[in-house]
Amino acid sequence: MRSRTEAAPSFVFADALAPEGAELVLSGEESHYLSRVVRAREGERVTATDGRGGLAHVRLTDVGRETRGRIERLEQRPRLRTLIVACGAPEGDRADWMVEKLAELGAARLQPLDCERGGWTRWEGRADRLMRLARAALRQSRSCHAIEIASPLPFERWLQSGPEGEKFLADPQGGRASAESPPVEGAATVAVGASGGFSEDEHNVMREMEFRLVRLAPTRLRTETAAVVAAAWWAAAAPGTPEAGERGPDGR
Amino acid sequence: MRSRTEAAPSFVFADALAPEGAELVLSGEESHYLSRVVRAREGERVTATDGRGGLAHVRLTDVGRETRGRIERLEQRPRLRTLIVACGAPEGDRADWMVEKLAELGAARLQPLDCERGGWTRWEGRADRLMRLARAALRQSRSCHAIEIASPLPFERWLQSGPEGEKFLADPQGGRASAESPPVEGAATVAVGASGGFSEDEHNVMREMEFRLVRLAPTRLRTETAAVVAAAWWAAAAPGTPEAGERGPDGR
Repeated sequence: MRSRTEAAPSFVFADALAPEGAELVLSGEESHYLSRVVRAREGERVTATDGRGGLAHVRLTDVGRETRGRIERLEQRPRLRTLIVACGAPEGDRADWMVEKLAELGAARLQPLDCERGGWTRWEGRADRLMRLARAALRQSRSCHAIEIASPLPFERWLQSGPEGEKFLADPQGGRASAESPPVEGAATVAVGASGGFSEDEHNVMREMEFRLVRLAPTRLRTETAAVVAAAWWAAAAPGTPEAGERGPDGR
Repeated sequence: MRSRTEAAPSFVFADALAPEGAELVLSGEESHYLSRVVRAREGERVTATDGRGGLAHVRLTDVGRETRGRIERLEQRPRLRTLIVACGAPEGDRADWMVEKLAELGAARLQPLDCERGGWTRWEGRADRLMRLARAALRQSRSCHAIEIASPLPFERWLQSGPEGEKFLADPQGGRASAESPPVEGAATVAVGASGGFSEDEHNVMREMEFRLVRLAPTRLRTETAAVVAAAWWAAAAPGTPEAGERGPDGR
């Protein structure tokens, strides 16, 4: 085990960041996390993000139910690349980990699609849960860009709204993913069918709109797996070096 | 919804396949799946695999607690590529979905590693559960190659055993995954650290053994995410077209 001083500072979420020098008051959930889970102490430095690119370096002044600190430095980090995953409904509760993994991989938005062969059910109850999972993943991945969980759209309305950037369709008949390049900059949208799959009509419309077909793997993937694998394919092409303060699975 | 005649034949597992023309008797679990879950009928064709490359086309003669059929055709499909994921322990129950996803993506073996910063606990109880999940994923992905779940090895013993094929280490300091090529044929091993990460020593030994460092994503990934993303990176480079009878998330 490493001691805390060797590890990166604790990472928390704040709805809004104050300017440099100002005081930041954290929510109950984040206060609990700092005071009870990581047992932070007064005087300790933590990092806070608003999930919209803001990153604050904070010195804690009070640790407890309402944890407070002073913002010593504030940065804005623009999102250099944007991935939208437009996705039919996975089976059962499988959307839970899909959201967590899409968030870890840095996807910008999950756009649930209601398709001919099935729609997202019980959305009201699920949206809150998915948002909580996304926020926890943000903390875990030490990212300053949260994933947006959009409300489900009917397939046709989504197409009419104009999918952003380069358009891809996860499809076993497509080109090998390693030979297809996701954009290194700008936006990309990947469409993934529900467990029943896109209908013939839906498929044809996307082809007419020049979605590029990408074969993510030679095996048959579940919806949630295909969505995460698509995000992995996109993340693998990210330029540059890891952001300061971010660490990989090897703990560095 | 598609009717069953339009869908691919049901896919089941059999410990051993008989020769062409012979009778195949399915286990209780697979019999239950056919008779109660998919409600197969006498005379229907199903596909059975032994998970070792054998693929049998079977005409059902009896459907019930002990489901039987006649093997009409038998094929052997060699594994063209082999991925071994050598992995520290994910937190909590996160190995469950890691195994499911590695199986879906066609990884050949999960080699759990006991490392300086943590080991796989409660293995006895978990091994059975992971095997069941792997078998369910085999059915789901309609693959005739099962993932092997090896018993945990101490890190040093694993290295002494000689990791197979081209060797990679998931590391945020590595080359961008999209620019690194996993082997299109033969074997590859990817090492992924536990949540605490590989120790400095472990890291150095792997570098000396010429593991290539691969940065899977610019964000910080959990252990189980890194393992699945590594398998996705490998699967994306698979040559050829999808196997007959296999369908993607779009249901084709």
